[in-house]
Amino acid sequence: MTVRPKPGILDPQGEAVRGSLQHLGFEVTDARVGRLVELELDATDPAHAKAEVERMCEQLLANPLIETFQIEIAS
Amino acid sequence: MTVRPKPGILDPQGEAVRGSLQHLGFEVTDARVGRLVELELDATDPAHAKAEVERMCEQLLANPLIETFQIEIAS
Repeated sequence: MTVRPKPGILDPQGEAVRGSLQHLGFEVTDARVGRLVELELDATDPAHAKAEVERMCEQLLANPLIETFQIEIAS
Repeated sequence: MTVRPKPGILDPQGEAVRGSLQHLGFEVTDARVGRLVELELDATDPAHAKAEVERMCEQLLANPLIETFQIEIAS
């Protein structure tokens, strides 16, 4: 699953990355930093796995006030 | 671009996520945490953009000793 800062929400980590890259001479106009969380589950049913990961996001992995999340199930 | 901890390399953030999820009652056997960096460039040539981002990864965005990175170019 991926977690991204919501559009319009200040992203201090992204700002720092953009500033550092520009300082190094790279022509970057914007940078946003999110997280990538790869989980191993024992679930055999993809729909059930997705519902579980959704609950994990809501309870722990994402902050719904400032972040959006996306879930991808691989088998 | 995405940055992931190399296989076999200790991932303390992933360990913390796994522990917290298990503590909350989720049946997770493994968790690995990486970063997602979305960059805006003015480049018009995808191949040139990819080469630039590769240099950014090597110089700033990834630690090649413990991390791997993957670049995707969107237009």
